[in-house]
Amino acid sequence: MSKGKVVLAYSGGLDTSVILKWLLEQGYEVFAYMANIGQKEDFEVAEQKALKIGASKVFIEDMRKEFVTDYIFPVYKANTIYEGRYLLGTAIARPIIAKKQIEIAKQVGAEYVSHGATGKGNDQVRFELSYYALNPKIKVIAPWKDTAFLNAFKGRTDLLAYAEKHGIPTKQSASKPYSEDDNLLHISHEAGILEDPGHECEDSIYSHTVSPENAPDKPTKIKIEFKDGIPVKVSNLNDNTVKTDALELFEYLNELGRENGIGRLDMVENRFVGIKSRGVYETPGGTILHEAHKDIEGIAMDREVMRLRDMLSAKFAELVYNGFWFSPEMEFLMVAIDKSQEVIDGEVTLKLYKGTAYPIARTSPSSLYNQDLSSMDIEGGYNQEDAEGFIKINAIRLMAHRNIIDKNN
Amino acid sequence: MSKGKVVLAYSGGLDTSVILKWLLEQGYEVFAYMANIGQKEDFEVAEQKALKIGASKVFIEDMRKEFVTDYIFPVYKANTIYEGRYLLGTAIARPIIAKKQIEIAKQVGAEYVSHGATGKGNDQVRFELSYYALNPKIKVIAPWKDTAFLNAFKGRTDLLAYAEKHGIPTKQSASKPYSEDDNLLHISHEAGILEDPGHECEDSIYSHTVSPENAPDKPTKIKIEFKDGIPVKVSNLNDNTVKTDALELFEYLNELGRENGIGRLDMVENRFVGIKSRGVYETPGGTILHEAHKDIEGIAMDREVMRLRDMLSAKFAELVYNGFWFSPEMEFLMVAIDKSQEVIDGEVTLKLYKGTAYPIARTSPSSLYNQDLSSMDIEGGYNQEDAEGFIKINAIRLMAHRNIIDKNN
Amino acid sequence: MSKGKVVLAYSGGLDTSVILKWLLEQGYEVFAYMANIGQKEDFEVAEQKALKIGASKVFIEDMRKEFVTDYIFPVYKANTIYEGRYLLGTAIARPIIAKKQIEIAKQVGAEYVSHGATGKGNDQVRFELSYYALNPKIKVIAPWKDTAFLNAFKGRTDLLAYAEKHGIPTKQSASKPYSEDDNLLHISHEAGILEDPGHECEDSIYSHTVSPENAPDKPTKIKIEFKDGIPVKVSNLNDNTVKTDALELFEYLNELGRENGIGRLDMVENRFVGIKSRGVYETPGGTILHEAHKDIEGIAMDREVMRLRDMLSAKFAELVYNGFWFSPEMEFLMVAIDKSQEVIDGEVTLKLYKGTAYPIARTSPSSLYNQDLSSMDIEGGYNQEDAEGFIKINAIRLMAHRNIIDKNN
Amino acid sequence: MSKGKVVLAYSGGLDTSVILKWLLEQGYEVFAYMANIGQKEDFEVAEQKALKIGASKVFIEDMRKEFVTDYIFPVYKANTIYEGRYLLGTAIARPIIAKKQIEIAKQVGAEYVSHGATGKGNDQVRFELSYYALNPKIKVIAPWKDTAFLNAFKGRTDLLAYAEKHGIPTKQSASKPYSEDDNLLHISHEAGILEDPGHECEDSIYSHTVSPENAPDKPTKIKIEFKDGIPVKVSNLNDNTVKTDALELFEYLNELGRENGIGRLDMVENRFVGIKSRGVYETPGGTILHEAHKDIEGIAMDREVMRLRDMLSAKFAELVYNGFWFSPEMEFLMVAIDKSQEVIDGEVTLKLYKGTAYPIARTSPSSLYNQDLSSMDIEGGYNQEDAEGFIKINAIRLMAHRNIIDKNN
Repeated sequence: MSKGKVVLAYSGGLDTSVILKWLLEQGYEVFAYMANIGQKEDFEVAEQKALKIGASKVFIEDMRKEFVTDYIFPVYKANTIYEGRYLLGTAIARPIIAKKQIEIAKQVGAEYVSHGATGKGNDQVRFELSYYALNPKIKVIAPWKDTAFLNAFKGRTDLLAYAEKHGIPTKQSASKPYSEDDNLLHISHEAGILEDPGHECEDSIYSHTVSPENAPDKPTKIKIEFKDGIPVKVSNLNDNTVKTDALELFEYLNELGRENGIGRLDMVENRFVGIKSRGVYETPGGTILHEAHKDIEGIAMDREVMRLRDMLSAKFAELVYNGFWFSPEMEFLMVAIDKSQEVIDGEVTLKLYKGTAYPIARTSPSSLYNQDLSSMDIEGGYNQEDAEGFIKINAIRLMAHRNIIDKNN
Repeated sequence: MSKGKVVLAYSGGLDTSVILKWLLEQGYEVFAYMANIGQKEDFEVAEQKALKIGASKVFIEDMRKEFVTDYIFPVYKANTIYEGRYLLGTAIARPIIAKKQIEIAKQVGAEYVSHGATGKGNDQVRFELSYYALNPKIKVIAPWKDTAFLNAFKGRTDLLAYAEKHGIPTKQSASKPYSEDDNLLHISHEAGILEDPGHECEDSIYSHTVSPENAPDKPTKIKIEFKDGIPVKVSNLNDNTVKTDALELFEYLNELGRENGIGRLDMVENRFVGIKSRGVYETPGGTILHEAHKDIEGIAMDREVMRLRDMLSAKFAELVYNGFWFSPEMEFLMVAIDKSQEVIDGEVTLKLYKGTAYPIARTSPSSLYNQDLSSMDIEGGYNQEDAEGFIKINAIRLMAHRNIIDKNN
Repeated sequence: MSKGKVVLAYSGGLDTSVILKWLLEQGYEVFAYMANIGQKEDFEVAEQKALKIGASKVFIEDMRKEFVTDYIFPVYKANTIYEGRYLLGTAIARPIIAKKQIEIAKQVGAEYVSHGATGKGNDQVRFELSYYALNPKIKVIAPWKDTAFLNAFKGRTDLLAYAEKHGIPTKQSASKPYSEDDNLLHISHEAGILEDPGHECEDSIYSHTVSPENAPDKPTKIKIEFKDGIPVKVSNLNDNTVKTDALELFEYLNELGRENGIGRLDMVENRFVGIKSRGVYETPGGTILHEAHKDIEGIAMDREVMRLRDMLSAKFAELVYNGFWFSPEMEFLMVAIDKSQEVIDGEVTLKLYKGTAYPIARTSPSSLYNQDLSSMDIEGGYNQEDAEGFIKINAIRLMAHRNIIDKNN
Repeated sequence: MSKGKVVLAYSGGLDTSVILKWLLEQGYEVFAYMANIGQKEDFEVAEQKALKIGASKVFIEDMRKEFVTDYIFPVYKANTIYEGRYLLGTAIARPIIAKKQIEIAKQVGAEYVSHGATGKGNDQVRFELSYYALNPKIKVIAPWKDTAFLNAFKGRTDLLAYAEKHGIPTKQSASKPYSEDDNLLHISHEAGILEDPGHECEDSIYSHTVSPENAPDKPTKIKIEFKDGIPVKVSNLNDNTVKTDALELFEYLNELGRENGIGRLDMVENRFVGIKSRGVYETPGGTILHEAHKDIEGIAMDREVMRLRDMLSAKFAELVYNGFWFSPEMEFLMVAIDKSQEVIDGEVTLKLYKGTAYPIARTSPSSLYNQDLSSMDIEGGYNQEDAEGFIKINAIRLMAHRNIIDKNN
């Protein structure tokens, strides 16, 4: 008799194929689930593989559009980056995967969900917090935190031996000496030979961008139009390509970024579980979008709104990174961020060149910028003499402080 | 009889030469003062010019080293940038100029200081807040906020006519259709033809960096060593150049940045006086230093210290930008920042290439990074099974929230 | 011929009566305007006085209900206090007064507004920022910042002499040796004999509360019901009085606070203009409401939402205090605060006794509190063993830090 | 053969007596350790009890003075309270207990430490994070998170039965239907009959304060002198009692608070482990100190330093509450807080009356307060006319925003 039904987040790779078999051996009925969020994968081959191993059914879900509109754009309009650098490419992908997984679990009547994330990383946290937040009754099977599993599989060799024993096909090409996470927004490379942060990452490891050295010698100029902080149109000023559909637009930004070597990042970051880790990232389209959005905010956002929003952005990145996408605090932040983007409209021109996206011009219908304040439609406009009072009043406190210091010395 | 003594921050240019003459006409005795903080200037010519116009004396002060060690390095170790982009090149230069000016005023017994900053900008605020903070009794003459002066000089033509009338030499070359501020850290270009943020800045305007397009086709690799968050050594790995003296080291970073087209920025920012303005900046060495410092912190700084420090860094940038260098709140922040840098030691390797400084490797003796946590000198090390409890406890709150939502719906 | 029309915020007191006359003398046509926001005032007498002095018309507006629902409640649901103590009684009253004044100016076609606030205080800022924010074309006449007016009226004696000369009646009773601001939310006492913060405020100065010593010896128990962070019902558990109308409810809280000596505060605070000042406040109903609201949040608000909201609350108080009620940043904060209050429902029981409002019990339909988590409707509930992993993962960072320290020593 | 040595944090009560015996049964050698931090306890009786049960040795450490100077005062000078209300009485006591426990473990050569805190509370986290932070190699035995122990002892009845079986004396008086934590700073009452937050706490439960109703009808006036934010002298103005020794002074504040019914608090708070809990607290001396310290800061602290410090204070409370006393982030905060207190000197007069400590007057040698700014030793002082420019410049942004809004509507 079955121990129950499990929906397994299946990647088609060695780890989750072994887990699939292992779950079957433990007596579970397993439903394999693959979210298509833009990663390079032959879904049909993977489906056949899962069925061959013994999955009752394989769910393959094309979530690319939703990923762009409901995950990438909301995060990028928050102008947020983790620890001042990381554009959250893996972190954003986890909640969307978990959400559909919980839906499938409900659909097939499964009381378990399972994933192949390791016990030292952030992804386990992001998956499981999302599961619990969406369905507090769900039970999680995380083999890489299970003593029996950990004892059985101490390394890649054990996995390969088990695969061979159970007739699970293993791609030779998959044996990269580091791990990757690939989706529409980015690809990450980490662990293995990349673990030593003092050792430079070889150029061959990068796959979503050409090397800046190999990028075109001629800059590409593009224009991005924003409405409420969301990109609604990308125009290539060199060849007049225009994209307006959210998914197409973002894929086109990726293409532009890839060609021009934009979006590489090599850093040491702090995981939620208290470990530092080195990550190498490529976020081509996301990097262009981030630069453009920052620039349109410069012209269209009120200064003090920006100050308040910036306080929240740092927390926003931390919550996304740590896996709290489905949480009351994230709902709270989303409402605030949405409000901040109400007038973030306009166009930014960027020059893409050998690794960098430079904003070089911008216009906004709701611009708070005024070329000639004296001609502003304000009676009197800016009066230079007012600045004297402004400065003197601001100095009162400093003068009092100086007097105290002088008195005490 | 003299109305009193004035120490004028003199640049050698048209504006402050006219102001110098105008102050003399008003009946003041004027001491001209020039701070050498690395700007491109023929100080001897300027001195002769000031004396010719009628300055009682000209003070020329070489403050380059102090500028690097006491202003640039403290700001850069705070990992701080204004509105997420501006590296504070002009803002940091104002307090050091004001400080010496107040000292000279004391020395010559002047009760007035004067400057040529406009009434719409940030510099007037930075100068005057510094003056008042250092000497609450000082009196400030700011012609560009003075009704009589403003009425007399409505534009550049009036200034030139006045100069000609009074035999003040005017450099032809100085008639750029925009204004600049130049020092060891950066050069800014703004106003005039640059005022329209929708109009791209021409390449000929840049002067501290070559265009990325004209930078070498081969990357330059360098290594920067930090001690307590301060760069103490720069090594060029291509040609083995080494610099350790603070001023030489920073000038060398400038040279490397200039050659590789690093540090250009074109943005719309929010001035303290409530106006938005477009600035075009070049900060070659500063940009390299900023990237390297962020990277060494990644490996050497505790996560939660970083979170707290980041809250302060945003305020730090704002205070520097707004002119509150000499203030109790800045003293407070400095102490905190210093504490945060106690273990920020180590080396960062960077690749400089056509506009960008990429950190590609880093090591730190005080690294919190541990390649193999299981071999960490902690009994037991990191135990993957602990992660389960960690996640479940973190999920308690989210599950409770979901239950409330479900109950209410 | 008239210099133009002015709408003057008129209080009926000596200062604004003199200003009314002075404006007429300057050649303006003056409309007097009194906002009834609950202050103790004979509006009819004041109206006759203004007309007698020469006002073209007197507008008396009963804004008490709007004051409670659109100003007091929104601020109190933000759980916000200035510098940890001041309940913003005067600060909130300024924008509502200014808003109607600008409306009247539009109605009568006035291009000027005027007020009697001094040049050293916060109220001038609050009035004028509100005026400019609501109508950038408005012109402000602020006699207490006008050199001619300041020279003419150097003290109270000059005002009295001028009043006598022009037949302006002066109440003897009004000659308190300190100044007050009175409204539905609070009364403030400051300046004059209260200026020395080392000198205790005499009991006779308080007028909105009895002295705690004179309050009843028996506690009063009340229950306040909240819906979305707003009080919707107050019940006196001693005598079964019940109030549900917003204005009546708040007036009743004032009555309860007054009787029980609740809401007195004597503090030194920091004004926006850089001066410290001593204020003595009485906020009877507001203090009870603040304590109750904090308590209902304790049971109904998520922890991390509270953390984020608290970051914003401090800024909220600062903005209200400084006069930025009508500003983009306040609009931003309001949206966030509203979101935070969505589930802040329930009842708080308080004991009112000799100066203090003690919350002693609370219930909430949307409570995140769970008496017996093990019986929680979450499969498995809280598992004590999970706490071990939670703690160990949280300790990883601390252990790494200790190892670094030990290594370096 | 012994499994090893354990240092047990022993309270003398039922739980830790059972744990002591249970550890012995498990085969450990047990050293009992009691920290005297001011709790009401007969240490000699407890010592005899522990020895009788089988402890190898009992360490009784008088840490009261250190508790006041190194824990209470540093926290109170940070002006910090958890969730706006809780004065951290239990939270501060945990790290000092853990620190000495780790020292004793080192002294006796124990590789284990143990405590009797439950698996649902904050104290387990505070103890264990402190242990691990001070000695990463230490091993923790926490019976209330141990499955075997939890199965053996499902409730108080099991503990009593076990005690009787093993001849462990049980005090009848100890059988309160709720739990308490008692020290020099406070006593907490929670759980059991107090668990329902909608049920009022009976007056008989309070033990560190008289009921406000039973407090004297005549106020007590006291004066507290601060130096660098630390209280250095307390004077009773009614009877001229004076205390200057840190421990005596704090005990005297407790006495004054107790008599006047000061420091009661009944609230629902958020535990670090994600649960909400209701706590009833009495913090007599701490409440007086907190009010006085806030008041002296009002007169002596710069406004902007206060703003920055307040951002940190909220984090400070959270860290103390969550158990991160020994952490890099706390070291960072301590340095910042110390800096903020450099000029927090002066005297505060308070009126203590039936539950409340009212600051009523204050003086400071380093006061930034100036009764008559025009007479300030600043040339010119505060000029009212400057306020006009100050306001107008602050309004620029608001006017621009209004223009955008009007344009869009």
